[in-house]
Amino acid sequence: MVNTGDTAWILTSAALVLLMTPGLALFYGGMVRAKSVLNMMMMSFGALALISVLWVLYGYSVAFGDDVGAGLLGDPAEFFGLSGLMEDTTTEAGGLPVMAFVGFQAVFAIITVALISGAIADRAKFGSWMVFAGIWATIVYFPVAHWVFAFDGDEVTGGWIANDLRAIDFAGGTAVHINAGAAGLALALVLGKRRGFGRDPMRPHNLPLVMIGAGLLWFGWFGFNAGSALAANNTASVAWVNTLAATAAAVLGWLLIEKIRDGHATSLGAASGVVAGLVAITPACSAVSPIGALVVGVIAGVLCALAVGLKFKLGYDDSLDVVGVHLVGGLWGTIAIGFLATAEAPAAVDGLFYGGGVDQLWRQVVGALAVLAFSFVVTLIIGFAIQKTIGFRLTEDDEVTGIDTVVHAESGYDFASLGGGGSTAPLGGQARAEARNTEGSRA
Amino acid sequence: MVNTGDTAWILTSAALVLLMTPGLALFYGGMVRAKSVLNMMMMSFGALALISVLWVLYGYSVAFGDDVGAGLLGDPAEFFGLSGLMEDTTTEAGGLPVMAFVGFQAVFAIITVALISGAIADRAKFGSWMVFAGIWATIVYFPVAHWVFAFDGDEVTGGWIANDLRAIDFAGGTAVHINAGAAGLALALVLGKRRGFGRDPMRPHNLPLVMIGAGLLWFGWFGFNAGSALAANNTASVAWVNTLAATAAAVLGWLLIEKIRDGHATSLGAASGVVAGLVAITPACSAVSPIGALVVGVIAGVLCALAVGLKFKLGYDDSLDVVGVHLVGGLWGTIAIGFLATAEAPAAVDGLFYGGGVDQLWRQVVGALAVLAFSFVVTLIIGFAIQKTIGFRLTEDDEVTGIDTVVHAESGYDFASLGGGGSTAPLGGQARAEARNTEGSRA
Amino acid sequence: MVNTGDTAWILTSAALVLLMTPGLALFYGGMVRAKSVLNMMMMSFGALALISVLWVLYGYSVAFGDDVGAGLLGDPAEFFGLSGLMEDTTTEAGGLPVMAFVGFQAVFAIITVALISGAIADRAKFGSWMVFAGIWATIVYFPVAHWVFAFDGDEVTGGWIANDLRAIDFAGGTAVHINAGAAGLALALVLGKRRGFGRDPMRPHNLPLVMIGAGLLWFGWFGFNAGSALAANNTASVAWVNTLAATAAAVLGWLLIEKIRDGHATSLGAASGVVAGLVAITPACSAVSPIGALVVGVIAGVLCALAVGLKFKLGYDDSLDVVGVHLVGGLWGTIAIGFLATAEAPAAVDGLFYGGGVDQLWRQVVGALAVLAFSFVVTLIIGFAIQKTIGFRLTEDDEVTGIDTVVHAESGYDFASLGGGGSTAPLGGQARAEARNTEGSRA
Repeated sequence: MVNTGDTAWILTSAALVLLMTPGLALFYGGMVRAKSVLNMMMMSFGALALISVLWVLYGYSVAFGDDVGAGLLGDPAEFFGLSGLMEDTTTEAGGLPVMAFVGFQAVFAIITVALISGAIADRAKFGSWMVFAGIWATIVYFPVAHWVFAFDGDEVTGGWIANDLRAIDFAGGTAVHINAGAAGLALALVLGKRRGFGRDPMRPHNLPLVMIGAGLLWFGWFGFNAGSALAANNTASVAWVNTLAATAAAVLGWLLIEKIRDGHATSLGAASGVVAGLVAITPACSAVSPIGALVVGVIAGVLCALAVGLKFKLGYDDSLDVVGVHLVGGLWGTIAIGFLATAEAPAAVDGLFYGGGVDQLWRQVVGALAVLAFSFVVTLIIGFAIQKTIGFRLTEDDEVTGIDTVVHAESGYDFASLGGGGSTAPLGGQARAEARNTEGSRA
Repeated sequence: MVNTGDTAWILTSAALVLLMTPGLALFYGGMVRAKSVLNMMMMSFGALALISVLWVLYGYSVAFGDDVGAGLLGDPAEFFGLSGLMEDTTTEAGGLPVMAFVGFQAVFAIITVALISGAIADRAKFGSWMVFAGIWATIVYFPVAHWVFAFDGDEVTGGWIANDLRAIDFAGGTAVHINAGAAGLALALVLGKRRGFGRDPMRPHNLPLVMIGAGLLWFGWFGFNAGSALAANNTASVAWVNTLAATAAAVLGWLLIEKIRDGHATSLGAASGVVAGLVAITPACSAVSPIGALVVGVIAGVLCALAVGLKFKLGYDDSLDVVGVHLVGGLWGTIAIGFLATAEAPAAVDGLFYGGGVDQLWRQVVGALAVLAFSFVVTLIIGFAIQKTIGFRLTEDDEVTGIDTVVHAESGYDFASLGGGGSTAPLGGQARAEARNTEGSRA
Repeated sequence: MVNTGDTAWILTSAALVLLMTPGLALFYGGMVRAKSVLNMMMMSFGALALISVLWVLYGYSVAFGDDVGAGLLGDPAEFFGLSGLMEDTTTEAGGLPVMAFVGFQAVFAIITVALISGAIADRAKFGSWMVFAGIWATIVYFPVAHWVFAFDGDEVTGGWIANDLRAIDFAGGTAVHINAGAAGLALALVLGKRRGFGRDPMRPHNLPLVMIGAGLLWFGWFGFNAGSALAANNTASVAWVNTLAATAAAVLGWLLIEKIRDGHATSLGAASGVVAGLVAITPACSAVSPIGALVVGVIAGVLCALAVGLKFKLGYDDSLDVVGVHLVGGLWGTIAIGFLATAEAPAAVDGLFYGGGVDQLWRQVVGALAVLAFSFVVTLIIGFAIQKTIGFRLTEDDEVTGIDTVVHAESGYDFASLGGGGSTAPLGGQARAEARNTEGSRA
């Protein structure tokens, strides 16, 4: 029988997680230069559209269909087109309509793909991005979601990380963040650096937009983490509080590093700290105490604040810090469980610091590294294949002109009608294309 | 007895739908020129304020009071001021407090009125808009909501479309979208074209704002559609997934048309595709399968992408495509049920393609055309009456100067304090009025 | 046993209220000049981070631990670090996991602190603000929350306003709004006026941002008010509808005053009316009828629209009207209960106009004045102590240059990459600091 409270919470959580992708679009969009804000947002919106369709067609089935062998893959045909799932049946675990679970898991697939786009700001052909998104979801995300999120049941066999390795990943530290972070690194290597990387200033063009995005991400993330209880219960409530605690601590950690190192605590740092804390607590939010969550968070803030500088030293252009925040934060959060898990928390496992020995720790490390390696290698292959065939990177001329104008025939802003000196000119050269856009492309 | 899960979901859904009106304000506001962004937003916020008050006073009663005859109208006096509804009683259908239902239905009334404003951007007197909004809600929306949403119960008689015609309109394809779309067309005809329509470029001035709006609309729409189950159950879950599927497919459909026709997939197209898909699946989300939802969506994207060009050919200035998106999308979604409904879905009706014959199809067509005709004709009358009495359209001078400055004594943006060349000038001529605004109008 | 519906609603409500603080950051951020938007937002985000951590450590315990005497303070050690609260137990009142209650109350503490920042826009050292926030929460908010929100139970003794005085404050008119408003007034006096206050125009630099903020605040406030029922029931539903009604009426009231006085209804007025109405109905939403809510709202709109002018007459620089809106609106809403409460509403008390005599009225007045006096005096002391030790106010030079550049080494916007006349210059002087910010502070 349907439990209406659990269903209410999961439908709400699914909507919250859906909102994270537009939130990410704003977060990313505000961080790039004004001439590429729209392309940045379009990579998220494009992923949102495409992955939703694939999820309905076969994605859910690959992730949650009966295992076809070795815990690596669900049966893609079992629920093709979500057939047979509209009946009034519930999940095995309890009173949730299967379709509520389908919707909730869909939005995880979407945002994982969208996250990757931050690594390749300003320089990827939009069509190639869409091709990449579809292939990557199909051969990386859907299987990895099976590994991590598909638990064995009476009538169904799930994935190897969830059931054989028994690594804890409550809400997606491995499946979402390590996965996306490793893919981001691979793609940043495939596409190469933006023209002027490390030399020209590439300031965020709209920090209030970044803050809106960070706010919406935090808000939505309560659905991501507390919704992963798949019920409105004590576990969800603990996850909720831990998500607040870790994120807050991460902001303080990041700002402290900035203040010490640079003399200034920045809004970009605060927004980045929000995401770092959220990423790190994602796998751990059911396994640690609120004090543990503070520790996970503050270390995430410090670690990621230091990690985002690596790209300049090592020379890969992870433009918006998918590696520094999602890969590093995801690794830390996943492994932190091995140290900080406490049996008092809902996951009921003791980590090393709580007398549990190294048992859980090595499970966490193996799970994290497996996803990292798989995602990195397969993404490299997909990326190079696209680069060598249809091409992935924009031409240098187009990059200089600006990807919004060239690829989307649009410009993010036009304040000309407000009057004032010179303000009729700002978009001069683009006027024709844009006029065409407004009255043409909607026409 | 109150079912807490259902109540949690409907209170949440009501808040989600409330958010859609500010979301619409951003969506619309970003699409106009910078000099009229505030007026555009004020039409939504003004409607939000006014319609809420009217709903409490008599709107709910007209829509959901006992029918006064022929299924056309509820008794306006029965629940005047929502009197008697605070007791701890539930709706007939189940465990929902009546006040939760009152709140949920309120926000549908609000957004329907706000939607219309997109057709008359930049050129309507604000006071006249408010007068229009109040009259239109009273003699068009409240009755039509009765037709479509008021179901017969043991103690109450409802509206003719819901009970006699038995057209399916799960969440408001007719009552909201066809209704608003037809009204938008009528009002665009009454007010005439913006100065320069079809000649001057009227580019969206802030596409990230449009994208924020689209994101919030999508998010809120899960409350709109899945909340319309009035329970946290399987029907709501199916509606949720169908809302995701159709919207995603519509974005792909719209972008594909743009790419083929113009060579560019735009962010304005993606945002518009979001809304087109949401509109089309609104009536159908309980009646079709997820595959059906993909079909509804992709066709909505294609149809609306083509339809928004009609205004240039036919010469009506439906400025932000209320007709092209809401009327066309609403018609398609409503009629699509006749073809694509499947008895496996919660609504349990087979459409033409599923062996159900034309029975449901003609019901859908009749319902759609009835609302379309009623709304169009009555709106024309209201519009002309206002135009001939207190006036509806701004003077040409005021329109050129900009409606924000003239009507609201404000300007959307002032970046002057950032310094830089010429930036102290942008709002030069308006400085006095605006200074007065800040230190006067809040003073 | 956990009631899943109540839990779903409170977890949702907690997330909604969490979102209010980023919403407030946008609301406040859009109202200041472009050169201080980031600092304005950072005061909210900083409070969000810091107060969350303090709440986990000892804040919850001070507010909801067993009373240590006279109803003034809970035991800070009882739940230090939220220890012992992860078990699967529920609150005394019903089926809510204790951790859900912990999370829900956390976000009230956060936003109360953040609200204060509006009184000291553009001129407070960020570090000093953070020190203030931590001290103020500790010795003002946490105790006052105990007074107002901690009800006696079988095993726990609560605060004096809730249990001895029995003033009605459903969702925080005293604890949140009067509290923050009085503190804002004190801090505005401590810091003094902005340079140029009352002389130079200090126009809101981004009114669409203000409107986004107002929209998110309204949305989140449904969690604030209806969530305060701590259950998904009829009380929550009545609170929901009253929150809609009062807010809508307040917008109309504010716009009407503007129209009459200035000749223009402004978007700033609409956004301000939203907040005024929300503030006023906060304590009263369970105690009045929907008609009563309309009265509370429209008077709130009128009163606050008039009150925000006082700062110019009396010469205190309450920059973003924390006093005019939160103190005045909070006082009005709290006292209005004494007049407009009706026994038909869930709180089941009759006010003066409903034949209940002055009994409830004096309770309301005493509660309101106690919080007002306590907050004002203690804040003055904290403020002066900070000013005399580490300093609170920015130097005049730094204030003129702009707090974003000086304190955060950032600038809100950079549209230079869009091209156009002079647009490479706007941030000229700041380029180095900002380049350092982007590639340094994240590096």
